[in-house]
Amino acid sequence: MADTYQVVFTPSGRRGKVPAESTVLDAARALGVDLDSVCGGRGICGRCQVMVGSRPGMDSKPERLSPPGATEAEYHGRRPLLAGYRLGCAAHIVDDVVIDVPSESQVHRQVVRKRAGVDNLPVDPVVRLYYIEVAEPDLASPTGDADRVLLALAGQWNLEELSFDAHVLTQLQPALRNGKWTVTVAVRTNRIVAIWPGFRDRALGVAFDIGSTTIAGHLCDLFTGAVLSSNGRMNPQIGFGEDLMSRVSYVMMNEGGEKRLTQVVRQALNEVIGELVAEAGMERDDVLEIAVVGNPIMHHLFLGFDPRELGTAPFALVTTAALDTPAAALELEVNPGASVYTLPCIAGHVGADAAGAVLSEGPYRRSPLQLLVDVGTNAEIVLGNEDRLLAASSPTGPAFEGAQISSGQRAAPGAIERVRVDPQSLAPRIKVIGQEMWSDEDGFDGSAVTGICGSGIIEVIVELFLAGVITSDGVIVDRGSERIVAQGRTFSYRLHDKPEVLITQNDVRAIQLAKAALRAGCDLLMDELAVDYVDQIRLAGAFGSHIDPIYAMALGLVPDCDPDKVSAAGNAAGVGAMMALLSGESRREIEAVARTIEKIETAVEPRFQEHFVAAMAIPHKTDRYPQLQTMLDLPEPTPAARSRRR
Amino acid sequence: MADTYQVVFTPSGRRGKVPAESTVLDAARALGVDLDSVCGGRGICGRCQVMVGSRPGMDSKPERLSPPGATEAEYHGRRPLLAGYRLGCAAHIVDDVVIDVPSESQVHRQVVRKRAGVDNLPVDPVVRLYYIEVAEPDLASPTGDADRVLLALAGQWNLEELSFDAHVLTQLQPALRNGKWTVTVAVRTNRIVAIWPGFRDRALGVAFDIGSTTIAGHLCDLFTGAVLSSNGRMNPQIGFGEDLMSRVSYVMMNEGGEKRLTQVVRQALNEVIGELVAEAGMERDDVLEIAVVGNPIMHHLFLGFDPRELGTAPFALVTTAALDTPAAALELEVNPGASVYTLPCIAGHVGADAAGAVLSEGPYRRSPLQLLVDVGTNAEIVLGNEDRLLAASSPTGPAFEGAQISSGQRAAPGAIERVRVDPQSLAPRIKVIGQEMWSDEDGFDGSAVTGICGSGIIEVIVELFLAGVITSDGVIVDRGSERIVAQGRTFSYRLHDKPEVLITQNDVRAIQLAKAALRAGCDLLMDELAVDYVDQIRLAGAFGSHIDPIYAMALGLVPDCDPDKVSAAGNAAGVGAMMALLSGESRREIEAVARTIEKIETAVEPRFQEHFVAAMAIPHKTDRYPQLQTMLDLPEPTPAARSRRR
Repeated sequence: MADTYQVVFTPSGRRGKVPAESTVLDAARALGVDLDSVCGGRGICGRCQVMVGSRPGMDSKPERLSPPGATEAEYHGRRPLLAGYRLGCAAHIVDDVVIDVPSESQVHRQVVRKRAGVDNLPVDPVVRLYYIEVAEPDLASPTGDADRVLLALAGQWNLEELSFDAHVLTQLQPALRNGKWTVTVAVRTNRIVAIWPGFRDRALGVAFDIGSTTIAGHLCDLFTGAVLSSNGRMNPQIGFGEDLMSRVSYVMMNEGGEKRLTQVVRQALNEVIGELVAEAGMERDDVLEIAVVGNPIMHHLFLGFDPRELGTAPFALVTTAALDTPAAALELEVNPGASVYTLPCIAGHVGADAAGAVLSEGPYRRSPLQLLVDVGTNAEIVLGNEDRLLAASSPTGPAFEGAQISSGQRAAPGAIERVRVDPQSLAPRIKVIGQEMWSDEDGFDGSAVTGICGSGIIEVIVELFLAGVITSDGVIVDRGSERIVAQGRTFSYRLHDKPEVLITQNDVRAIQLAKAALRAGCDLLMDELAVDYVDQIRLAGAFGSHIDPIYAMALGLVPDCDPDKVSAAGNAAGVGAMMALLSGESRREIEAVARTIEKIETAVEPRFQEHFVAAMAIPHKTDRYPQLQTMLDLPEPTPAARSRRR
Repeated sequence: MADTYQVVFTPSGRRGKVPAESTVLDAARALGVDLDSVCGGRGICGRCQVMVGSRPGMDSKPERLSPPGATEAEYHGRRPLLAGYRLGCAAHIVDDVVIDVPSESQVHRQVVRKRAGVDNLPVDPVVRLYYIEVAEPDLASPTGDADRVLLALAGQWNLEELSFDAHVLTQLQPALRNGKWTVTVAVRTNRIVAIWPGFRDRALGVAFDIGSTTIAGHLCDLFTGAVLSSNGRMNPQIGFGEDLMSRVSYVMMNEGGEKRLTQVVRQALNEVIGELVAEAGMERDDVLEIAVVGNPIMHHLFLGFDPRELGTAPFALVTTAALDTPAAALELEVNPGASVYTLPCIAGHVGADAAGAVLSEGPYRRSPLQLLVDVGTNAEIVLGNEDRLLAASSPTGPAFEGAQISSGQRAAPGAIERVRVDPQSLAPRIKVIGQEMWSDEDGFDGSAVTGICGSGIIEVIVELFLAGVITSDGVIVDRGSERIVAQGRTFSYRLHDKPEVLITQNDVRAIQLAKAALRAGCDLLMDELAVDYVDQIRLAGAFGSHIDPIYAMALGLVPDCDPDKVSAAGNAAGVGAMMALLSGESRREIEAVARTIEKIETAVEPRFQEHFVAAMAIPHKTDRYPQLQTMLDLPEPTPAARSRRR
């Protein structure tokens, strides 16, 4: 038997000679290989599973490691020991060997998450668990229990210079005694933030997207990246104002109003957390980390910052920086050592939600020019690629969310979301949220209609334009149909009876203003980059997920682009929150990127007004991509007969 | 005029060439001279006052600096500009010059404080104030207010890598606007912990000594070291148990009892803080720093640590380390950025109070062998010098505090504190707390007597021993005086009538046990150092301040020592708290010293029992210093006629 053996770890490629009979875990540590362990080599956690690999000249015979012994036979941890795998802490190296470390056994890894719409979700926990055995106190050598915990962490994990959070010290003595002088501690950077008796290998996190309308939360395992439960609710601040500006007005007009808005949103988060952990069979105390995105006003109110400066120019944020705030300081009922990470804000109207979307979409990682649009009361617009990123916010107002529309409503059951209009008869076909069938199909219940949402209003305006009912200037003209209703000097289109849903001249104007604002913002950023096309358009958020990209382009909401390259990004901001929750690397990445994003303030750019005026027309311009014309039979040059697209 | 001039700063001796017309403050910064400033050179704070000095070959002509201008003429800060002094930020260097920086203009300084019993109190603030002018927000370049504060601190003070405490961010925007874009921030290490609008040059701290009986607090200016007010009150925990062990018992026997004890002591501190700031005309919000000493049980209960482990062997502390805890986490109502420093504990029965006394007395800074004794329910004993320091705790019990004594009471008005006994008639003379005169002087009111305190009981026992009423074994014998009262098979001495105060055989036994425990602890430490004398004895704490050192030695409470070298140390622990409050250097010093102190556990040392038995006799041994015999006319070898000492 040799004194040392050659070991090669894959996929890292790290290699070196280690003493014969070293455990695989010790060899990995000696060679700086990322091999996970919570129990520190005691055969409890099962995190260090490896298998014998091979390479030219070295086969994968299991005998290159010591035969499985009692530790592996008795192992019964949460992660099953798979066939062919060995516990790295129990298997000794008895020959030259290639050790393959599967992704699941690495602390830093990529998790494939099809469901969340991201290919690779990096997992790189900001908090880690360490199981330790602690010396008992000794009358003859009086030291504090905390002193001996630090000694154990130094001796068993090579962790030095750690300090205790105050609340951990209050839990220390019972934890040590209940755990029979074994405990698991959670360490965030150099602070011990939590302690539990005995062995423990799970800690959870919650990613929150605080929207002005809805709050969505996902409970994740901080180490595997698995989503354990998802939940959401209305933002209770709606009771103080439907849209953002009315909430800021509430704060301006009511003494202490900002405290009340802060209180209700934190309470809602606490309720969501309660439901998330209950659904997953966990406890609030298991939650050690929280990541939050939201627009600047949601961000400020959640953090307890008075939002009134965001209500008037120059729209000064308290801070643009990403923050780590103790969860207790934000009154969140989770583990007292939990920390809340808020993503950076980019500017007064381009918030942590935009940063989350940028992190999730990652335009800065690629060369194609991406336009990322998140439409709310303000549209947050990001344009760029690996070379340069620009951001702006356009004051679209709430029309796309159904506000300011005579029969408008939010995208909720009962809302008309899809519209087709027969160009001859002007008869409509509609689809309503909550019903599977179109209005001309069996079983459709027209009485369930409650109004029309953003996607519906966009489609009906495009359809009416194509049918010659709405002019390029946005005027509804009387085509002598019983569907056209005169109202004073203007006309409306009767989209639905019982209940009646009219599309009024004012509705068209409202949408024109909103779309002109959005489009002018896009055009301004394109000017800045001196481009007249983009390679890809991603429509983020609820509205972006709901609208048909073809109609959006037909209306001129967004610039010309290959229709195949226009797609919904889903809740990109929320995915960004989850990425930040799970990975310190992702946090550093978005913090660095956010600092480089160039902010274009639409309010001070004279060209914004020019673009705005130019973008009022319907359609704005659609000359670049013939596909779009084919897909919708767009008129060229004037409205004409056309076939239907379904 | 030259391009550069030679500048020498005294007393630091730093020197170098600086550009002509540099301000003295800029020159000091360039040369690394400790010259204070809060306003950053704007002529507001007056902290940078200097005068022209001289040295051989360079006179002290004022013309070596530019003539006083408008800034100095208009200066009206809190610290007056003294005749002959210049503002370092306003005076320009126009010739080679010696600049004398007085102690008051240094950040790090020594404050002479006769009142607190310390010669030199180092001031080296752990928190500093910085006045800054902050750029206003600009729509065209949207940054957060916090970002611009950081830029100002970097640009105006060269401070980098700072972060904000969460609560500061909530106060940031109103502070900037109320201060018209000037604010003063407080920085502790690399964190911004407080912010105020405009200029501010004062921050306060409170030093607390939490005793089992009383809580004392001193409000200090963190920068000048001045004591602004002092206050104290009973420790309300007394309601849950007179002595330490009965409070631990309360915790053991009452669910949640530790929380209740924690709550009442924190509440008491809040009340003391309220009175301290009111008395000084300040606000709670001015308090940025708190330092606390206390025995291990007081220390633990204050910090919210369950003390029950301290009630039974092996007496495990939660931690021996000095801690910095946010004041808010300890429910103290002060500035939300305030931090609470607790001095290190040394062992399960040798607490932060002993550490405070060690810091204040500083035996480790000198060569004479010092015995430092702080008597409470446990006597904390420290012995050593610059070479070596030992500490132990002796279970004296509460007899010295008047408990377990038939007519015993705490040292409070009505308590007999001094006793003289006529060796012939056995008639006593007494002195009572709250009355100036002895009992044989005009105007003495014997009816005001309520009991006898520790110093009184020690004196009466020594006096009775000298009068031959108490034997060396501690037995009260009947000398046929009407003052000796038979009680069953034992005798008592009638010290006072109306109300009656008897010194019973059990009282003598209780004091014998207590003094034997204390003395055995001292002897154990002396054994360890292999010495049979000490150079100096310091008696700390309330009891130590009250007892007559000569009687203490006569009873054998403490080892032999030159009586001139035995003295009361006053509230040494409290002075230590004040030192830690005012100086980061002092904190590092006591933390380092505490780690080197060797802990001797009396409970596991077999020789402790031997010493204990030997120390029961009265007097123990008094052969070393003839002065002592002279001063008290100590019997040699048997009781004999003697004159009186008053």
